[in-house]
Amino acid sequence: MSLKVYELAAADPAIRFSPHCWRTRMAIAHKGLEVDYLPWRFTEKERIQASGQGLVPVLVDGEAWVADSGTIADHLDRRYPDRPLFACPQSRAHARFLETWVSRVLHPQILRQIIGDLFTLIDAGDKAYFRESREKRFGTTLEALSEGADAALPALKATLDPLRATLEAQPFFGGEASSYADYAVFGAFQWARVSSPKELLDAGDPITAWRERMLDAFDGEARAMPARG
Amino acid sequence: MSLKVYELAAADPAIRFSPHCWRTRMAIAHKGLEVDYLPWRFTEKERIQASGQGLVPVLVDGEAWVADSGTIADHLDRRYPDRPLFACPQSRAHARFLETWVSRVLHPQILRQIIGDLFTLIDAGDKAYFRESREKRFGTTLEALSEGADAALPALKATLDPLRATLEAQPFFGGEASSYADYAVFGAFQWARVSSPKELLDAGDPITAWRERMLDAFDGEARAMPARG
Repeated sequence: MSLKVYELAAADPAIRFSPHCWRTRMAIAHKGLEVDYLPWRFTEKERIQASGQGLVPVLVDGEAWVADSGTIADHLDRRYPDRPLFACPQSRAHARFLETWVSRVLHPQILRQIIGDLFTLIDAGDKAYFRESREKRFGTTLEALSEGADAALPALKATLDPLRATLEAQPFFGGEASSYADYAVFGAFQWARVSSPKELLDAGDPITAWRERMLDAFDGEARAMPARG
Repeated sequence: MSLKVYELAAADPAIRFSPHCWRTRMAIAHKGLEVDYLPWRFTEKERIQASGQGLVPVLVDGEAWVADSGTIADHLDRRYPDRPLFACPQSRAHARFLETWVSRVLHPQILRQIIGDLFTLIDAGDKAYFRESREKRFGTTLEALSEGADAALPALKATLDPLRATLEAQPFFGGEASSYADYAVFGAFQWARVSSPKELLDAGDPITAWRERMLDAFDGEARAMPARG
């Protein structure tokens, strides 16, 4: 049975940048599954209607349409138990705080850094949707967000402090090997790498060394996606 | 063999308020171990010299002197494997980010809210040490920190957002039952509860309901410590 994943694509359909889609792509690489990645744009809600909502990633596995990267990870572990993303139920529960923190705290701060570049990357047909939805979410214009980016970079680097301290204690968020927790964090940095030439990390940062390990993982699955700039 | 834990005590030696000591106390209650809790003050470094450092909690288990609440948790799981604090090695690794975030992000923001009350709670002999070490850490006076507390409360409530969202998905940070991850978070709220009459949480907050469950756990181990005010 062939698996399909709908994945957000840039104007160039080969460029995949969504942080949530990268969580799923790394999870699938971790499990060694074969998947067809289908490019999708923000405005193509009807193509994923069977998932009951309008955002990607969406996994199609036989009759099942599964939305939300965390729910997809749980589906994959249930359906394909080899090479688990979560080693035990408590481990899955412990990862939820990190996933949530990445989505709610880290993503908005990274988005501010890359939003100008991101706007030039996305498909022309997506620009109106992107502008309207993001300006509503942040209560300001894309241009104003982007102008404040440099001043906000030190705050982002401070926000990364608990990631950094965790990686000083262990090589991966999953411990001795990467787990879904790593992919949840990595999605954010891969989003920035693919969308923008701006470097968010210093060379000596333990997060930088970890990001390199993630880029190398699974025969360079993530490194194969070109970095911007 | 009797276990001993050195635990930070207030001017009233029965009052134990340290967030790190509460992580250990809840971990010990979780495992159902019998422990003598010895009151200790900031200035009594020589009493815990055998631990190789100067902070509590310190666990004394036979010949072993173990410092640092996370290291104590690992020691307890290794030495007393029944009722594990961490169900699998990956679960332990996943909890590390949450522990680190609590210590580095949540604790300083809670301390600002309660520091005035905390200063009146601690032993007279600890006040000079406390003032000097905290003023150095924050780069300002205790009084200035305390004066800014009300203005900083909305930022603290926003910081709690990923905890809140996690508890909307599952009853405990450990999933269906509490784990060491819960005790790491609870220590922060118990610190505030024992030290200060200030309420940091709204009644309808999912964190409030979780805190009640934690206060009830282990025959009310944490609720037995009087709340301030």
